[in-house]
Amino acid sequence: MMNPTPPPLPEYHLALLGFGNVGQALIELLLEKQADLAADPGVVFRVVGIASGSHGQAIDPRGLPLQEILSSYRDGGDLDPYSTTKFQSISEFIDHCGADLIFESIPVNYQTGEPALGYLKQILTKGIHTVTANKGPLVHGYRELSKLALEKQVSFMFESTVMDGAPVFSIARCGLPGARIKEISGILNSTTNLILTRMEEGETQAEAISYAQSIGIAETDPSGDIDGWDAAVKVAALVNVLLDLPYKPDQVERTGIRDITPDLIRDASGRGKKIKLICRAWLDPDNPGEILSEVKPAEVGPESLNYHVSGTSSILEITSDVLGKLSLVEENPSPRTTAYGMLADFLNAVR
Amino acid sequence: MMNPTPPPLPEYHLALLGFGNVGQALIELLLEKQADLAADPGVVFRVVGIASGSHGQAIDPRGLPLQEILSSYRDGGDLDPYSTTKFQSISEFIDHCGADLIFESIPVNYQTGEPALGYLKQILTKGIHTVTANKGPLVHGYRELSKLALEKQVSFMFESTVMDGAPVFSIARCGLPGARIKEISGILNSTTNLILTRMEEGETQAEAISYAQSIGIAETDPSGDIDGWDAAVKVAALVNVLLDLPYKPDQVERTGIRDITPDLIRDASGRGKKIKLICRAWLDPDNPGEILSEVKPAEVGPESLNYHVSGTSSILEITSDVLGKLSLVEENPSPRTTAYGMLADFLNAVR
Repeated sequence: MMNPTPPPLPEYHLALLGFGNVGQALIELLLEKQADLAADPGVVFRVVGIASGSHGQAIDPRGLPLQEILSSYRDGGDLDPYSTTKFQSISEFIDHCGADLIFESIPVNYQTGEPALGYLKQILTKGIHTVTANKGPLVHGYRELSKLALEKQVSFMFESTVMDGAPVFSIARCGLPGARIKEISGILNSTTNLILTRMEEGETQAEAISYAQSIGIAETDPSGDIDGWDAAVKVAALVNVLLDLPYKPDQVERTGIRDITPDLIRDASGRGKKIKLICRAWLDPDNPGEILSEVKPAEVGPESLNYHVSGTSSILEITSDVLGKLSLVEENPSPRTTAYGMLADFLNAVR
Repeated sequence: MMNPTPPPLPEYHLALLGFGNVGQALIELLLEKQADLAADPGVVFRVVGIASGSHGQAIDPRGLPLQEILSSYRDGGDLDPYSTTKFQSISEFIDHCGADLIFESIPVNYQTGEPALGYLKQILTKGIHTVTANKGPLVHGYRELSKLALEKQVSFMFESTVMDGAPVFSIARCGLPGARIKEISGILNSTTNLILTRMEEGETQAEAISYAQSIGIAETDPSGDIDGWDAAVKVAALVNVLLDLPYKPDQVERTGIRDITPDLIRDASGRGKKIKLICRAWLDPDNPGEILSEVKPAEVGPESLNYHVSGTSSILEITSDVLGKLSLVEENPSPRTTAYGMLADFLNAVR
């Protein structure tokens, strides 16, 4: 006797806000994994919308031709020709794309989290799951967005905001239930870690910055990394989620690496040490419920795992009331790594 | 207007099979966390049964007086006086304890996983969640026990079997969905790592073993650790769960540390290296779906994180198709750490 045909799997309609390196890597990963994910865990999807910053938007409820769009877009093509309908704004795109889940990776202002924060509110208010790769809206809107997601019974996910796709927030959600995290520390900014590593090898800071820019790691204006802003935003994001306390980036005591010279690095090396931009946040022992935090260059010796985290790699150390120090180290991240964090969020959201 | 009284939270009835260091640490942790867990995430429980190996068993549906039992038991007291009913065997205890979830941490035979394997089958067959701290039954019964749990719609959890309470299996379950793990490696046996660390500091192997025995880390017959059996069982457990392929400990190519002499360690040190008992399993590139694996002493240099994992600390490195190498390092484990892994399993099971 034949088995009855199993019921068809639900098909998730996905859309992307933002189509830079990460958005493109996500489309590649979705194409690569589509057949495997349908087989196990039985997650079927089509991409019905992509909105780029300055190269148009496309919506097609039948599913967009992803391979063709990737090629054309990389040759400078526009998204509009692939669209079955025309829209004037990102806000209209969100309203009309028909997605069950929207991935967001647009450029944001770290000081405000905008414009991503507003879009994420709009998405969640419509009862659509959302996954952001941006720490800006996370740090400025974590409580509001989480509350909105809960009310609408959808997921607000953000694994790729800190340490690319490494499962930082998954560990906190699934791996440390009932634990009280007392301190987090580590190296969270890849760009400055790469610059310091190159300076150890003899480059000046300017040379190291130029190199980081040449491989697309540092921005034209590198001050967000160099002055420790990016790291401070990540510290604040981790405090909000892992320590579950409201916290803003400007509460982090912040010193960047601008004053770190080859001489200082050589001196440290003579003492068997390296200079690393160390991030740290911990419960204030004198004021229960208060947090102290800092981002600053520090000399670390080989007894610390931080000493051995070089180049663009990163490390997060978690101290809790139930485990000894637990460290997570990610080596060699790339846009694919960030894209994977977003895919993992999607799979966890619909699980 | 007053808020209406919220409905009472469900109360979980818990029981323990095994009341050694880990079982006692678990009771301590449950007492310590009881009020916090009731507040958030709203998990309420009472312990209705404890079965020890040679100091009796106690069942009381009203909940056992845990603090009193801990004190009395540590003074050599027996559990039987606390029981409202009498039982002849562990099997009867399982049948009659009335628990929703049973924690299992009894001594087992690594070659067979018994007697724990049989008890876990009995527990799951009765539709009771179970959490084991034993890698023996995991490695010999993973597929059968998982299938049984699925059929009965209960959880079979085992976070504490590898790297104590560090969230090894939680990472795989929640942190790496859709990833294809290609290789795992690291240092998974605390006892040999401690012995090698002490030998680096000048002790002979016999002296280092004596020290490990004196602090309760090594057993009277240390061969399970020294000959790499414990590490091989852990490798097989990780292959079964993380690489999702059936695998037995005797398939692991295994060399212990018995032949590692102070001279060999000094020689390695002269080359800037350390000797570590490295565990490794990877997809055979020549035979799809097949695994190659080994546990053996290897010289590692300071460029490897393994070099810096000393004493009883441990490390697991995961290589997948979506992330660069991801490493998890746990420092300073204890029976409390293992107990925490069991508590985390309970919270994840009833979530």
